[in-house]
Amino acid sequence: MSENMINPVPEGANKAGVASSDRRKFLRKSVALAAGGAAIAATNAANAEDLKTWTEPLKDEPTRHMLGRGVVAVPYGLPSKYESGVVRRNVGWLTADTIASISFTPWQDLHGIITPNGLHFERYHAGAVDVDPSKHHLVIHGMVKQPMIFTVEDLKRLPSHTAIHFLECPANGAMEWRGVQMDSMQFTHGMMSCSEWTGVKLTTLMEMVGVDPKATWFYGEGTDGSALQRSVPMEGAKDQHGNPIPEAYTSHYRDAMVCYAMNGEALRPENGYPIRLFIPGFEANMSTKYLRRLMFVDKPLVTYQETRHYIEVLPNGEIRQYNLVNEANSVINYPCPDYKLKGKGTYEIRGIAWSGYGKIKHVDVSIDGGKNWTQANLVEPVLNKCLTKFTLPFEWDGEERLIMSRATDETGFVQPTLKQLREVRGYNSIYHKNSIQVWKIEKTGEVKNVQIENV
Amino acid sequence: MSENMINPVPEGANKAGVASSDRRKFLRKSVALAAGGAAIAATNAANAEDLKTWTEPLKDEPTRHMLGRGVVAVPYGLPSKYESGVVRRNVGWLTADTIASISFTPWQDLHGIITPNGLHFERYHAGAVDVDPSKHHLVIHGMVKQPMIFTVEDLKRLPSHTAIHFLECPANGAMEWRGVQMDSMQFTHGMMSCSEWTGVKLTTLMEMVGVDPKATWFYGEGTDGSALQRSVPMEGAKDQHGNPIPEAYTSHYRDAMVCYAMNGEALRPENGYPIRLFIPGFEANMSTKYLRRLMFVDKPLVTYQETRHYIEVLPNGEIRQYNLVNEANSVINYPCPDYKLKGKGTYEIRGIAWSGYGKIKHVDVSIDGGKNWTQANLVEPVLNKCLTKFTLPFEWDGEERLIMSRATDETGFVQPTLKQLREVRGYNSIYHKNSIQVWKIEKTGEVKNVQIENV
Repeated sequence: MSENMINPVPEGANKAGVASSDRRKFLRKSVALAAGGAAIAATNAANAEDLKTWTEPLKDEPTRHMLGRGVVAVPYGLPSKYESGVVRRNVGWLTADTIASISFTPWQDLHGIITPNGLHFERYHAGAVDVDPSKHHLVIHGMVKQPMIFTVEDLKRLPSHTAIHFLECPANGAMEWRGVQMDSMQFTHGMMSCSEWTGVKLTTLMEMVGVDPKATWFYGEGTDGSALQRSVPMEGAKDQHGNPIPEAYTSHYRDAMVCYAMNGEALRPENGYPIRLFIPGFEANMSTKYLRRLMFVDKPLVTYQETRHYIEVLPNGEIRQYNLVNEANSVINYPCPDYKLKGKGTYEIRGIAWSGYGKIKHVDVSIDGGKNWTQANLVEPVLNKCLTKFTLPFEWDGEERLIMSRATDETGFVQPTLKQLREVRGYNSIYHKNSIQVWKIEKTGEVKNVQIENV
Repeated sequence: MSENMINPVPEGANKAGVASSDRRKFLRKSVALAAGGAAIAATNAANAEDLKTWTEPLKDEPTRHMLGRGVVAVPYGLPSKYESGVVRRNVGWLTADTIASISFTPWQDLHGIITPNGLHFERYHAGAVDVDPSKHHLVIHGMVKQPMIFTVEDLKRLPSHTAIHFLECPANGAMEWRGVQMDSMQFTHGMMSCSEWTGVKLTTLMEMVGVDPKATWFYGEGTDGSALQRSVPMEGAKDQHGNPIPEAYTSHYRDAMVCYAMNGEALRPENGYPIRLFIPGFEANMSTKYLRRLMFVDKPLVTYQETRHYIEVLPNGEIRQYNLVNEANSVINYPCPDYKLKGKGTYEIRGIAWSGYGKIKHVDVSIDGGKNWTQANLVEPVLNKCLTKFTLPFEWDGEERLIMSRATDETGFVQPTLKQLREVRGYNSIYHKNSIQVWKIEKTGEVKNVQIENV
């Protein structure tokens, strides 16, 4: 690298941006405040007509606070009191008690791809867990050359990996399978959040312990009481019947990491503090919270969770097991049922799209119930296994409208209609409901969650 | 788009991932828990030797919580009690009172490019402001065809823009200019944070009001009492003496937006709720908080803030005004003075780099006081006017080490040494201290903030 490139002030800036030394002498002679005040007054005089236009509509402006008092002396900040409605919520009747509980992310009030940590969805299987990081360990064992035990500090010292990815419970949208139609985006799509995750790549740890090439699965277990034990397939994996696991599933572990941070800071207690497994693209229960061990094996463990939960009963009576990937999905979060439109005119349709198979390729939007589709704008960056925001201008004529979005990912997978999904998956599933979501805008501006024929 | 692409279940997955109906019959006959338990027991038996290896180190594992109680029923979540030290902090002596106060972001404890909103730095000029969004307005006037007034709701309805950008106070590192050397990354670099911002592009609003082509500056003003009024240059802008503003500065407004959200949710009160101007790459005081008006003009307003503050006295006695861009900068945040290294061995040097001129091109790291440099790995995504994380493996031999990083941005601008910066800017500035930061690792593992000859 050439030393000539070191140039702390751009040449043009240095010359042009410098006021004359006369100006400086003036400043030195004056009381600084008076000098500044005079400069403002002089300019104001030159723009008196403009300012007249400006001051009139603001004459009785009630929000001007020409002297605030003190500061918001909050070492860890919180939202404005006017945003007290933007919180995680549960549906009271969904789980039997608070120990097996769910909190949903309020997507109706979010504007980007990042979910603030305070609003990340949570799914408890066995109550609150409060792990002291100084006493926590991760053991890696099984089909390895050298079993190893890591403290949280050890993990933070190892080569790190950081990436923005969504995390989605397979039960996201579960209530929609049989037509419950919740009139809130919080409950139709709120079991999904998206964060910047940091940790150690699983492949780094695998190299350290020397995983046996014959190991085709690994098993993750948390230190909580949830028994949320899951088997994760790797290349060459076969299920307990000897059937090969699809290749599309056996490469996901290569993106996996043992995470200690989300959106820069430490994991939150409800998201697995101090460490969790995170497998981008796989259903969230695979990303074991409060991770205490990883065991490498040559077959799936067929755990309680892999037989009683997280299986799907197909129309022909077969059970689909190890259905791990969150397939291409999308939803419009503005407009959505939580807010009424204020009269006809110009709006912007905004939504989020994601796929557990990779990047979003394009998102199509329909405002006439699926008859015509228009490609939406994708907001950069478009990242691997990450939310992608999309937008499309929308002129509402005040008439009834059926609006909907359809995502296509880089593998060519197209988000199905609910009809198509039911043809393959039937009516018994509560998982992986990734079908097209239809919102109906009524003449009043109210927005409803509806199911329509062929969609 | 071909309908053939609609394929809700990948073909392979559907065949291979489905368990036989015999299995299903078995499940139906069994009590589900027993079935799952048996499956685990069977697998455990097959891996008894491995599990023996595993169980021993964890025999007295004190963090296992096999029954958590209740859930963390916090509608808006907060960090673990074990992370209570990761907060914004102020240096008591830095400002005269709490009304003109600063809180710094704890970069020593952050691991990515996103700053959680609760830890975003804040700089108050006139105390806390608590604006009711339903009563707030934005007026756009001056050299425009049609002055306009917008409610916050109006702005949210307009075409949106979302992007991840850093925001930095020009006084970031101010205490380092004259050699104060704070032994904490929170105080050397904590007046900078990075978020995903959402709002309306300024150019969208300019089009709506029909800005006069002769307007070369605009002026932003907040509803608080800070009088933090700033003039922002556009193409063709000249200063009050008729000197042209460098081209490198006059295009920044094209990225600007009137923001209502950060990291997805509403702006925080201390960051300008309900709306703020945000000009990526410019010093943070240009990004007027609690924005109430934008006035388009054909010269700078030379406000109090533009004469008394935010100017630099150069070695030759000249005053440099309108020095707006946060130039290429970087810092190693692991290791850093806040934490002691635990003995020699393998570590990873990690840091953050940023430039107000665009993307980071490369970051070089030295572990011998600047004699030799090695190019670090840049963590994707590398975005415009955004933090870029960098990493480099580091084998610490237990000897004294001077570690430092040097960023180069896509314009070829290279982060200067403090010596080079002083040669051009002298000793009187408190702004734009973007020089190379040297950390000294001592034999004890302690890390110190030092200044060394030629750096």
